Amino acid sequence: MTTETTSYKGLQSVIWAGEQLDLLDQRLLPEEIVYLPLVTTQDVWEAIRHLKVRGAPAIGIAAAYGVVLGSRDAGEASAWLTAVKEAAAHLATSRPTAVNLFWALDRMTARADALAADGSDLAACKEALLQEAITIQSEDEETNRLIGEHALTLFQDGMGVLTHCNAGGLATAKYGTALAPFYLALEQGIKLRVFADETRPVLQGARLTAFELQQAGVDVTLICDNMAGMVMSKGWIDAVIVGTDRVAANGDVANKIGTYSVAVLAKAHGIPFYVASPLSTIDLNTPSGAEIPIEERNAEEITEGFGKRTAPAGVKVFNPAFDVTPNEYVTAIITEKGIVKPPFDVNLKNLFNS
Amino acid sequence: MTTETTSYKGLQSVIWAGEQLDLLDQRLLPEEIVYLPLVTTQDVWEAIRHLKVRGAPAIGIAAAYGVVLGSRDAGEASAWLTAVKEAAAHLATSRPTAVNLFWALDRMTARADALAADGSDLAACKEALLQEAITIQSEDEETNRLIGEHALTLFQDGMGVLTHCNAGGLATAKYGTALAPFYLALEQGIKLRVFADETRPVLQGARLTAFELQQAGVDVTLICDNMAGMVMSKGWIDAVIVGTDRVAANGDVANKIGTYSVAVLAKAHGIPFYVASPLSTIDLNTPSGAEIPIEERNAEEITEGFGKRTAPAGVKVFNPAFDVTPNEYVTAIITEKGIVKPPFDVNLKNLFNS
Repeated sequence: MTTETTSYKGLQSVIWAGEQLDLLDQRLLPEEIVYLPLVTTQDVWEAIRHLKVRGAPAIGIAAAYGVVLGSRDAGEASAWLTAVKEAAAHLATSRPTAVNLFWALDRMTARADALAADGSDLAACKEALLQEAITIQSEDEETNRLIGEHALTLFQDGMGVLTHCNAGGLATAKYGTALAPFYLALEQGIKLRVFADETRPVLQGARLTAFELQQAGVDVTLICDNMAGMVMSKGWIDAVIVGTDRVAANGDVANKIGTYSVAVLAKAHGIPFYVASPLSTIDLNTPSGAEIPIEERNAEEITEGFGKRTAPAGVKVFNPAFDVTPNEYVTAIITEKGIVKPPFDVNLKNLFNS
Repeated sequence: MTTETTSYKGLQSVIWAGEQLDLLDQRLLPEEIVYLPLVTTQDVWEAIRHLKVRGAPAIGIAAAYGVVLGSRDAGEASAWLTAVKEAAAHLATSRPTAVNLFWALDRMTARADALAADGSDLAACKEALLQEAITIQSEDEETNRLIGEHALTLFQDGMGVLTHCNAGGLATAKYGTALAPFYLALEQGIKLRVFADETRPVLQGARLTAFELQQAGVDVTLICDNMAGMVMSKGWIDAVIVGTDRVAANGDVANKIGTYSVAVLAKAHGIPFYVASPLSTIDLNTPSGAEIPIEERNAEEITEGFGKRTAPAGVKVFNPAFDVTPNEYVTAIITEKGIVKPPFDVNLKNLFNS
């Protein structure tokens, strides 16, 4: 008897191609696989704003390269440092909720400051800054593999696991955060049954999560968001795992709209609710979810999201892109450094200090 | 100072036009208003099966006329009675969950039996059976107005009320069940803020509820299903009211998929959860929700419902059309005979006996 195993063979959403950033246009998936060549900071800004790239870690990675693109043509050191900071300041305005964006930009500007202070020559500064972006990307891959390994200790063969939105390989350098354990389970021959919420309005669950898990050979079933409660009541779900755009110091979790509803439903059914989060997504400077800005997006995402009007013209719409799940609904936060349990205010601080 | 009031001016979904049934094709709303001429029982069967008409009371009304259409050409009394029963038996196979369908068909065949037993002449039988269908329709209108009046006693000026799917004028003869209080509030100058879940996969909330409330001048805001929890957590919702396809003897409520999730969320937020239901939707012969058959529909409703594929080809899909909300989540059931509170097993039985 042989055990079939499969290694991760997902699409890569952000590829540094030497002179340009090749970015997978996630809005076109699963129907079309198109890489966009981005050559300016503004290209990257628009890609982030218009969801061509999405997923907190992938946004951070793209933004890091956006800083490189915005500063590579500077003719002398002080102009280079200014260009780095201007690019970072501009990219910071692309989307408000995901903390990885600000984390990556801060890391890039801090690196540039250090390089400038060292007095390295300009070409070396530029090369080192590019290396920083490449490092951010490669670290993310390693981080996600570790998150997947920790998460997998919470699952057993035969379990049903529900996820919301896409915290997969497409949202990160590789593996994803919330989806990483599913890829590792596949490698290890552990069978999990995944339920993917389609995740209105932009359908990242249907277009991206179902797509990348199906491509990889994971057993995935697509449902509408409003079916999660029924599926839980049938006893099909043993755990929920989601990604996050920002974890506050007290363990409150901002994530794609609908995550809070899933968390409340999980609690009502006695199902553990796990959040997969790299340290770069945990923001100890944000005391609680109340301080996380929640982006509101255009009504058209809801009323005519797929090229066809599905609601009356002129109807009033509320379209928040994210919601906050209070820490009381979170069973554990799974990081690359291990699994964090409540009380989160104490244990997240300890995590960073350890 | 004057108070503006508005009377109900909604579209009628089922119109008996003398020789045919003119049926509003609800799949095309809100973009197109098209009435289909139905002339055979099979026309009506297909209209019900393919959601051209939907909403438990409207399905019952359409089915009643479908029996008329299937028997009107019979040449003599026994063939007429046979045709009535064959039409009813066929229409009963169109959809499994809404009890009004079976209730209306039973009422039509019972009336035909009585007419046949009376020995009335064939033309008189046919005319009387048509009158029965017309009566079912007109009673529904009166029923809904009474439901609206009772429901409105639960609401106060300034309240926010969330509804799911469409239990409006389009789902009934007029006024709707869950939406009836909103129309009556408008007539009485009581201001309510309605939040309408879009209701995936078929988007009855976006296409129908938001449409008919907006047309009438009700303050309505459209949200995606997965935003209900967040909107509740903001304190914007003071009550939930929904329609139903079948209420079991113990007060368990079958309704459009997603209703159960809304009910769990309402309970978690301390928000009352009301079900608007005519007596014809309450089935004392169904002991509990466990005995209500739940229709599963095609995967394509989810994967290519917007006229465009939004999920990978071949992905596994679970698409239940309804779910069951256990009675413990139901604050009250609002009928034309008044408001029923728990214990529902006792109080529903009393309602029918009173």
